[in-house]
Amino acid sequence: MDRLTSTIDQLSAIAPYRHLFHCHSDGEPMPSAPKLREMIELCRSIIFPGYYGEVATHSSFLRYHIGVSVEQVCRIATDQIQAGLCFLEDETHECDNLSAEEREKTAVEKAEQFVQSLPRLREILATDVEATYNGDPAAKHVGEIISCYPTIRAVFNQRIAHVLLNLGVPLIPRIITELAHSETGIDIHPGAQIGHHFSIDHGTGVVIGETCIIGNNVKLYQGVTLGAKSFPLDADGNPIKGIPRHPIIEDDVIVYSNSTILGRITIGRGSTIGGNLWVTHSVPPGTTLVQRLSEPLASQSD
Amino acid sequence: MDRLTSTIDQLSAIAPYRHLFHCHSDGEPMPSAPKLREMIELCRSIIFPGYYGEVATHSSFLRYHIGVSVEQVCRIATDQIQAGLCFLEDETHECDNLSAEEREKTAVEKAEQFVQSLPRLREILATDVEATYNGDPAAKHVGEIISCYPTIRAVFNQRIAHVLLNLGVPLIPRIITELAHSETGIDIHPGAQIGHHFSIDHGTGVVIGETCIIGNNVKLYQGVTLGAKSFPLDADGNPIKGIPRHPIIEDDVIVYSNSTILGRITIGRGSTIGGNLWVTHSVPPGTTLVQRLSEPLASQSD
Amino acid sequence: MDRLTSTIDQLSAIAPYRHLFHCHSDGEPMPSAPKLREMIELCRSIIFPGYYGEVATHSSFLRYHIGVSVEQVCRIATDQIQAGLCFLEDETHECDNLSAEEREKTAVEKAEQFVQSLPRLREILATDVEATYNGDPAAKHVGEIISCYPTIRAVFNQRIAHVLLNLGVPLIPRIITELAHSETGIDIHPGAQIGHHFSIDHGTGVVIGETCIIGNNVKLYQGVTLGAKSFPLDADGNPIKGIPRHPIIEDDVIVYSNSTILGRITIGRGSTIGGNLWVTHSVPPGTTLVQRLSEPLASQSD
Amino acid sequence: MDRLTSTIDQLSAIAPYRHLFHCHSDGEPMPSAPKLREMIELCRSIIFPGYYGEVATHSSFLRYHIGVSVEQVCRIATDQIQAGLCFLEDETHECDNLSAEEREKTAVEKAEQFVQSLPRLREILATDVEATYNGDPAAKHVGEIISCYPTIRAVFNQRIAHVLLNLGVPLIPRIITELAHSETGIDIHPGAQIGHHFSIDHGTGVVIGETCIIGNNVKLYQGVTLGAKSFPLDADGNPIKGIPRHPIIEDDVIVYSNSTILGRITIGRGSTIGGNLWVTHSVPPGTTLVQRLSEPLASQSD
Amino acid sequence: MDRLTSTIDQLSAIAPYRHLFHCHSDGEPMPSAPKLREMIELCRSIIFPGYYGEVATHSSFLRYHIGVSVEQVCRIATDQIQAGLCFLEDETHECDNLSAEEREKTAVEKAEQFVQSLPRLREILATDVEATYNGDPAAKHVGEIISCYPTIRAVFNQRIAHVLLNLGVPLIPRIITELAHSETGIDIHPGAQIGHHFSIDHGTGVVIGETCIIGNNVKLYQGVTLGAKSFPLDADGNPIKGIPRHPIIEDDVIVYSNSTILGRITIGRGSTIGGNLWVTHSVPPGTTLVQRLSEPLASQSD
Amino acid sequence: MDRLTSTIDQLSAIAPYRHLFHCHSDGEPMPSAPKLREMIELCRSIIFPGYYGEVATHSSFLRYHIGVSVEQVCRIATDQIQAGLCFLEDETHECDNLSAEEREKTAVEKAEQFVQSLPRLREILATDVEATYNGDPAAKHVGEIISCYPTIRAVFNQRIAHVLLNLGVPLIPRIITELAHSETGIDIHPGAQIGHHFSIDHGTGVVIGETCIIGNNVKLYQGVTLGAKSFPLDADGNPIKGIPRHPIIEDDVIVYSNSTILGRITIGRGSTIGGNLWVTHSVPPGTTLVQRLSEPLASQSD
Repeated sequence: MDRLTSTIDQLSAIAPYRHLFHCHSDGEPMPSAPKLREMIELCRSIIFPGYYGEVATHSSFLRYHIGVSVEQVCRIATDQIQAGLCFLEDETHECDNLSAEEREKTAVEKAEQFVQSLPRLREILATDVEATYNGDPAAKHVGEIISCYPTIRAVFNQRIAHVLLNLGVPLIPRIITELAHSETGIDIHPGAQIGHHFSIDHGTGVVIGETCIIGNNVKLYQGVTLGAKSFPLDADGNPIKGIPRHPIIEDDVIVYSNSTILGRITIGRGSTIGGNLWVTHSVPPGTTLVQRLSEPLASQSD
Repeated sequence: MDRLTSTIDQLSAIAPYRHLFHCHSDGEPMPSAPKLREMIELCRSIIFPGYYGEVATHSSFLRYHIGVSVEQVCRIATDQIQAGLCFLEDETHECDNLSAEEREKTAVEKAEQFVQSLPRLREILATDVEATYNGDPAAKHVGEIISCYPTIRAVFNQRIAHVLLNLGVPLIPRIITELAHSETGIDIHPGAQIGHHFSIDHGTGVVIGETCIIGNNVKLYQGVTLGAKSFPLDADGNPIKGIPRHPIIEDDVIVYSNSTILGRITIGRGSTIGGNLWVTHSVPPGTTLVQRLSEPLASQSD
Repeated sequence: MDRLTSTIDQLSAIAPYRHLFHCHSDGEPMPSAPKLREMIELCRSIIFPGYYGEVATHSSFLRYHIGVSVEQVCRIATDQIQAGLCFLEDETHECDNLSAEEREKTAVEKAEQFVQSLPRLREILATDVEATYNGDPAAKHVGEIISCYPTIRAVFNQRIAHVLLNLGVPLIPRIITELAHSETGIDIHPGAQIGHHFSIDHGTGVVIGETCIIGNNVKLYQGVTLGAKSFPLDADGNPIKGIPRHPIIEDDVIVYSNSTILGRITIGRGSTIGGNLWVTHSVPPGTTLVQRLSEPLASQSD
Repeated sequence: MDRLTSTIDQLSAIAPYRHLFHCHSDGEPMPSAPKLREMIELCRSIIFPGYYGEVATHSSFLRYHIGVSVEQVCRIATDQIQAGLCFLEDETHECDNLSAEEREKTAVEKAEQFVQSLPRLREILATDVEATYNGDPAAKHVGEIISCYPTIRAVFNQRIAHVLLNLGVPLIPRIITELAHSETGIDIHPGAQIGHHFSIDHGTGVVIGETCIIGNNVKLYQGVTLGAKSFPLDADGNPIKGIPRHPIIEDDVIVYSNSTILGRITIGRGSTIGGNLWVTHSVPPGTTLVQRLSEPLASQSD
Repeated sequence: MDRLTSTIDQLSAIAPYRHLFHCHSDGEPMPSAPKLREMIELCRSIIFPGYYGEVATHSSFLRYHIGVSVEQVCRIATDQIQAGLCFLEDETHECDNLSAEEREKTAVEKAEQFVQSLPRLREILATDVEATYNGDPAAKHVGEIISCYPTIRAVFNQRIAHVLLNLGVPLIPRIITELAHSETGIDIHPGAQIGHHFSIDHGTGVVIGETCIIGNNVKLYQGVTLGAKSFPLDADGNPIKGIPRHPIIEDDVIVYSNSTILGRITIGRGSTIGGNLWVTHSVPPGTTLVQRLSEPLASQSD
Repeated sequence: MDRLTSTIDQLSAIAPYRHLFHCHSDGEPMPSAPKLREMIELCRSIIFPGYYGEVATHSSFLRYHIGVSVEQVCRIATDQIQAGLCFLEDETHECDNLSAEEREKTAVEKAEQFVQSLPRLREILATDVEATYNGDPAAKHVGEIISCYPTIRAVFNQRIAHVLLNLGVPLIPRIITELAHSETGIDIHPGAQIGHHFSIDHGTGVVIGETCIIGNNVKLYQGVTLGAKSFPLDADGNPIKGIPRHPIIEDDVIVYSNSTILGRITIGRGSTIGGNLWVTHSVPPGTTLVQRLSEPLASQSD
């Protein structure tokens, strides 16, 4: 094993990577995906008690469980937000934009605001459950939706991440949506604005970009991309960040499987976009786009 | 933290969500995805010993390991089926369709029947392993298939879920297939009927619907959807459940990547469906559908 | 439970499956996916300290953490390689191609060589991080790329697996890439050769085949397949293994979402392949392939 | 390993030990020391919050923690009492004295009664803490007593066990006191009756027998035995169970280290028993027993 | 934290302690108390199923549990014996007395012999349980003895350690008896020879020396020492090891609490030794030693 | 379970116990015995590598393990000292004697000083190991002493606790010695001053008081008490704290089993105190105290 000493020396040399890696205050913790996963699990047990977390709680004890979970969420959120605040964008990419005290105070405030948003999140997630149940003939019971439909997990994380993003918390929201991406194959950016009664069927491969705006009562199928068509570069040839570049999907729209909708276009209210389509222009309300029948396919029967 | 008290009160108010959430007998446990994952792991270690579970068992001790695992599977299955039986469909969505005693007795019976199906499952899964190995030039060893091919995990869970579904167990089968969906990106409904020597290459994004019937020796590639084209609504505008609405894929069919086959159509025996196709009509046996060459593509070389 | 005894007997009868299952030396451990996952986590904490593993290490202690992690990686790698060496291809599929001593000695050597490759892996992974950051307008910070972009996890595992494959280690590399496939929905075969500054956006559904050769500075989007078009069968009707059958992607190529590139064709340097395309012929350098506009789509507005 | 098969067969033959071992209903769980240890830990966190269990609870969340812990205690107590009820003494030593339903109903009732005794236990344990603090010049802070004095742990378990014993629960109380015996070296039988303001200094080696009666404000030192002098045998030569045979220690008594007090004698109120004594007769109130000075000890100085 | 670097350097300098610490072959594992504790727990679950280990096993599955546990015991024992063999006494205190191959072969043999002794151990432990139950009026049920009497745990470990000692295994037996010492306060050297029907009441503080010989049907109480009176020194002033120096206790002897019996003396068959005595001479069979009544104790009543 | 609500209310009422329980700043963590146990385990692995902690470290990696362990010890020590500082004695028993910042700064300093004492602790512990080995004819190997002799564990914890006590850390030292007390039955107060080459044989029941002063090369046997004879009370009848009240044991003294030495007396250099004695007066150097032979004991042979 002695031969590995020089390997360890090379790996311990961090200087050449300073420009790439984060310049964290020494000893300050970095954000932790496992802790955020734990926080998400706790939030799920608060919003959907019985389906997540403790499976056999008697209703007369529910309040106590929720109280304990809320405290734990608040503690993890505070720690993680504090860790995340080092990643505030600035010129230097140094973590000295805020003093330790400011970061702690800010983290406590934002964590509390986050927790206070949970009742509202429960309200809107209930509409997502309802929409998913009503839209799927294979669903036998609303409990099936909550227990195992990936759409609920993905949208759950995104709605939480969206609240944190709006509170000005860096990095953490993206980690949260990527946790759901890994779990479900559904990749929704925290920045996307999504109305109530939202559902995604099956879901694997769905991509929803940062500046998407999605109305109420929208339903997507697996493999749908709501993406950017292109993005302008700055003088250095790097993409300019923050420009609206993803679609607006108005209320009551359905997009079938594997269709791709690109660019800052608008899919008008009540439209239906068929499967496997490539859409780069706006369509007016009430449009139905269907795939042109590739009738005389080169098929052959023997 | 005192400010969070009213948040906890709001979150503890369960009444407004009664219509959505499950009305479980107080204190009765709900089904548990982590326990079901544990059960699946045990079943995998029974069916594929050495590849899953204890990695270094001497063959003269194999019988003891299987005995202990069978007992554990039986115990978890009993508990989970009992918890799941509360979700039997009925008018009221109340968990009073069966007495506690009836549920326990039923659960014990169904769990035993499930365990008794394991030898048969091993037999058919061996054909899936064989088909996957024979169909993939990248596979160096049959152990590679069992160890890491997602198709085996997804089909494993689906075949188990299908047995449980046929035993009349609610909810549990769906949780089991969603565990595999999360693990592999392959979403097969427990209701799908699948023949022997079935394989899926790569697999991410595959969707196989509830009423699909798949023959023997069928092979799918990644991104294939066997879905419903549309579904009739009832008087209230909700989808009518349980109607056959997914394709029938006969023996010896191959479907290449990202093709979508929709509706209660039949893909005749021995047919080959090329990639990226959108198929909504039946094709006779022996058909080869290929993508029309989009010859003069708007390409440009500089 | 007595009724289950005969089930246990049937399940303990391993003889009928001998031809399928691996004939491991009794008591010798099989490769273990959980141990390999642990090894990958350790490698991630070595390459990207703070982002993975211990979140709050003071830089003056970094060297110690790396030393301990390197020892652990070396130990796990030795055990797993030793277990994997039983799967060396041979006629008999028996694990007697090497004596226990030879296997142990070989495993120690290969594990050390693997560990010694980590500094070089860090170097090339830094280019992947850089390319991903520069290519995504939604990325706010390079730390976001390392923390949560699936491309980094998938490419990380593939680059490690590729080193092990080149060291002649069987089976283990495939388990490692499938761990990433499960985590990210990105399926890259260990055999693929990939240049520096490689990135995949979103990534779910990407498939990169065994004999692909990918140049520097290549970018893929979600759902892209770099696959085989067909493969020749041997006299027994089984696919012949090891023949080059996947695309060559030259430097500076971009492939947009859900396009499929099949066969041993070459996508020339600097080309751009639009989304949703099906490409089975080589294109010269500098080509831009775009989807023919399906102008008069059967759309209808009401 | 094949040679071990006959060993396993021998060990699986349970028949020859039937008369010794418990004849439990098949599949019914036995009492579990680890679960009871968990229950004790929960009770400690309820009675002494912060010192045991969650170390950083904000007081505004205390109620929720206690609620959750009470539910958990109630659940474990119910299960363990139910398991213990099989050990009710009867002629046959068979576990058929109660039906499963009776046992479950009884267990629920007794568990609730046990939980309802916790506030009273807290009250009396507070007097024990106070007495210990006041009696030890080495104690700097009352928190030191609660955190680490073995007397508190031993008396805690005994008081809980005593409640359960009085509720007619078999076996469980003894397991609970033996947990404390193992932890502290203090062995107090659940049957002993102990007044308030009780303390034991150091404690290792203390033994307090089943039928002891101890008044208020009693203090013992390490190595003190309050035991039986002898016990009458029945016709078969076995000890007759349940006869009062241990000392009565009245209020305000101190017993110094390593003294042994045997038999159903009374140590009168306010007495002081010196160290290393062997006492087998009652002493009147206010007695001070001291060790006779063994003046001309065979000592020698060189 | 930088100031700690020199502390780490000092602590990493192992040379000055070479003469004291063990000169283990680099990378060879040392014996592990936690693994031995696990092995003991497994043995307890084999000998006393239900009371230890899995609490709810159905009797028709018992054989499988025992088979699995036996394999695990065998594996841990092999590893630990192999690690322990480095501690064979020799001149140099170097671990080169046996080659790695010899150690492995020896370890496998001894582990199997150890496992094969388990049925005989069960037989004799059953007599200990019986004796303990018959001798204690506070015991309500034989299950109480097995579940929680410290004597059973201490004697269990000693009997196992004694078997291993007789197999010539170094170090491991002492670790095993010290595990019980820590658990129960009863310190029995692995070398002590102990007959059947042995019991210790309460037990804290009991010490039984290396060369003790204890007959059948012997009962000890807490605090009893069976020790050495003195031991001859060698030319260097160090005690000569291995000389018989502890008492012989013949059949049917009782020793009451806190008595000390020292030296190679014999307590004749059927004798009773009262409490708190200091015995350094042999006594003939049938002797009853009682404490001289210290009648006119310096007591005073007020 | 509804009946338990009022129990929870009673248990949540903390006001009546305020005078007894600690008035901790809300949300500030209390000291944690499990974390301190972890710290002790780490220190043991640093001082005695291989015997504790990682069992199979290659010597060329030792430095890295020690570095990582030192960092962990430093972190836990900082947190625990910070928590403990709330227990500084003052009039009010309120935790406001130090500001949070002062406590943090103080904790960091003291933790570093503690860690810097580890090399010196290793030096003196090596003498304890040596003395124990030389003094016990049953010890076969020095590794046996380190692995399993309780004296090493008890003295280890006490020497660590003593350092922390001298650094002015409240409460934590007592928790640390009580951890060893529970583990070994040896109760040594952190305040005791103990020279080098100290050993305790067997050890159960040993008590060493707060103000003891023990010279070099002292050996004790099981059950020895070095205690206080009495202690003066203050005007309120409470013991006055901090007065020297325990024995001074000079160099080269042996005290045999179960003897009790009480009060601020001096046992002169080189003395031998026999077993079972009760000593309350000083003895000059070189004294041998032996138990007077209770010759004509009331013994009877039949």
